[in-house]
Amino acid sequence: MKTTRRTFLNAALALSASLLIGGTAFTQTQDPLPSWNDGATKKAIVEFVAKVTKPGSPDFVPVAERIATFDNDGTLWCEQPMYFQLFFALDRVKALAPSHPEWKTKEPFASLLKGDVKAALAGGERSVLEIVMATHAGMTTEEFNQTVKDWVATAQHPIYKKPFTECVYQPMLELMAYLRANGFKTFIVSGGGIEFMRPWTEKVYGIPPEQVIGSSIKTKFELRDGKPVLVRLPEINFIDDKTGKPVGINSHIGRRPIAAFGNSDGDQQMLEYTQAGGGARLLMLVHHDDKAREFEYGSKSSIGTFSDALMAEAKAKNWNVISMKDDWKKVFAFEK
Amino acid sequence: MKTTRRTFLNAALALSASLLIGGTAFTQTQDPLPSWNDGATKKAIVEFVAKVTKPGSPDFVPVAERIATFDNDGTLWCEQPMYFQLFFALDRVKALAPSHPEWKTKEPFASLLKGDVKAALAGGERSVLEIVMATHAGMTTEEFNQTVKDWVATAQHPIYKKPFTECVYQPMLELMAYLRANGFKTFIVSGGGIEFMRPWTEKVYGIPPEQVIGSSIKTKFELRDGKPVLVRLPEINFIDDKTGKPVGINSHIGRRPIAAFGNSDGDQQMLEYTQAGGGARLLMLVHHDDKAREFEYGSKSSIGTFSDALMAEAKAKNWNVISMKDDWKKVFAFEK
Repeated sequence: MKTTRRTFLNAALALSASLLIGGTAFTQTQDPLPSWNDGATKKAIVEFVAKVTKPGSPDFVPVAERIATFDNDGTLWCEQPMYFQLFFALDRVKALAPSHPEWKTKEPFASLLKGDVKAALAGGERSVLEIVMATHAGMTTEEFNQTVKDWVATAQHPIYKKPFTECVYQPMLELMAYLRANGFKTFIVSGGGIEFMRPWTEKVYGIPPEQVIGSSIKTKFELRDGKPVLVRLPEINFIDDKTGKPVGINSHIGRRPIAAFGNSDGDQQMLEYTQAGGGARLLMLVHHDDKAREFEYGSKSSIGTFSDALMAEAKAKNWNVISMKDDWKKVFAFEK
Repeated sequence: MKTTRRTFLNAALALSASLLIGGTAFTQTQDPLPSWNDGATKKAIVEFVAKVTKPGSPDFVPVAERIATFDNDGTLWCEQPMYFQLFFALDRVKALAPSHPEWKTKEPFASLLKGDVKAALAGGERSVLEIVMATHAGMTTEEFNQTVKDWVATAQHPIYKKPFTECVYQPMLELMAYLRANGFKTFIVSGGGIEFMRPWTEKVYGIPPEQVIGSSIKTKFELRDGKPVLVRLPEINFIDDKTGKPVGINSHIGRRPIAAFGNSDGDQQMLEYTQAGGGARLLMLVHHDDKAREFEYGSKSSIGTFSDALMAEAKAKNWNVISMKDDWKKVFAFEK
């Protein structure tokens, strides 16, 4: 019976811990960041959290102001060999092709349908925009939400052969949970589509839709068969990238973050804006230097460019560069 | 041992309950809505909250989905004899006049500076827009934030002779607190300026900046003396009124509310959109029918128009119309 009692006690404690925001006891007895190797990076995280949460500390920050923002592609989940949202768009082109016979001869769709992604994207930003508008607009927000949910439930990463939502970085999941356990509110601030992320971020990252900021197309209120819906229009509303990130943060949060995490030139202004608030700050950039377990790319990559200028700025401003190879014990939860 | 087990289970449950936002015990022993008269309206609120929070009820709604949206002008605070934001704008015109000698002969500023508000606003929307842009743009978001804070700390309502932030409806403060105590997340969805509200909503309403949605002008990321700032541009970004409210809700929350509160034609689509989600819903409109304690206005008012068509829709769709006169024991906390 002792076992039974202990089971109940453990269950009760686990329940309490999961209900509390605090979790101080937890952090004292157990490593909250088990997938992080000991070293300067992990130390910077733990020390930052300790000082901003310690009452009376000169760096103490009230709970309401503990805002942490995370880029998504390349920071929380993988972005190679192509942004995952592009895989979604390409799958949608295939699914919608029967209702679009004109696509057989119209670029970029014609190349795409022949399986030649490279040729399809040769037109650069314009091609991508055409593909996005053709696959992301013209339906209600609820229909799009369902389409994303269906895709996420079945589509697989071409290399890892896992659902895309499993190609998320285990150390970053731990970091977000650790911050939340210490009273932080975690937000996604991504160049990706806001409505492409919202259907799954709560389940995958523990981040509810109202804490997701991203790029968007315009929507319009309409009555369809007497029912109020929002229809997605083929018109850009907001690009949440580079200088757009501080704008998006101000628009959605209305408060300056005290911690920001990115991995590319697209995150530069978010980190600058976060740091400029004064007081204790945690600024980190994931560096993809792990050819064996993930990918190795940086200044020369067209996806997730981490330029030499950004690296120089990081050094000059004491931002932490996370080495996937050295700082992460494990990259993905599915790793052996 | 069965008893011990039960004790542990009970202890665990009690612990959980006390940690939860719930507070059922509180609501059973004390009226959470003391400024509301007993009657159909108060009953509708309490019954709605009871059914969506009762585990196992067919109307149960998980905490994460308990979203309630509130219009601000005329719903949470007074909007007479003029939208409070216009008082702010007029005060700013006066404060900025010394640096704008051209305003002495340029409308709508000339009339304003002579104290003739009516003549100044005779140009309708265009005049208002000119005043707003002249007073709300051209500075950083932080400078504007401080200007609003300073104004709120000193300006007084011309009739009540109280700070504008005290001209808030006591019953609505209680309603928001009651909803939050039952796991709801409360949002403002206002036609007013998002950055005009955020500096004070946390203190006055308990609503943090990230839960405030409103109209906005564009902002631009800039380095000023090497410091990253957001500059407010004289260009409309978004009008959060009428059909714009569901658009704003989708953009900022990404989830359909289950309760919505307004007071005018500007809130019609927000209530329609909320109701269309299916399941238990609470839809309410504040009706200003209290000449003695506040104001009496409705279908003929240019501010906060509550048209006959809206009243007819409310009746047809079983929305609750809150009579200030009959449903509210007290309107303002400062009332004798």
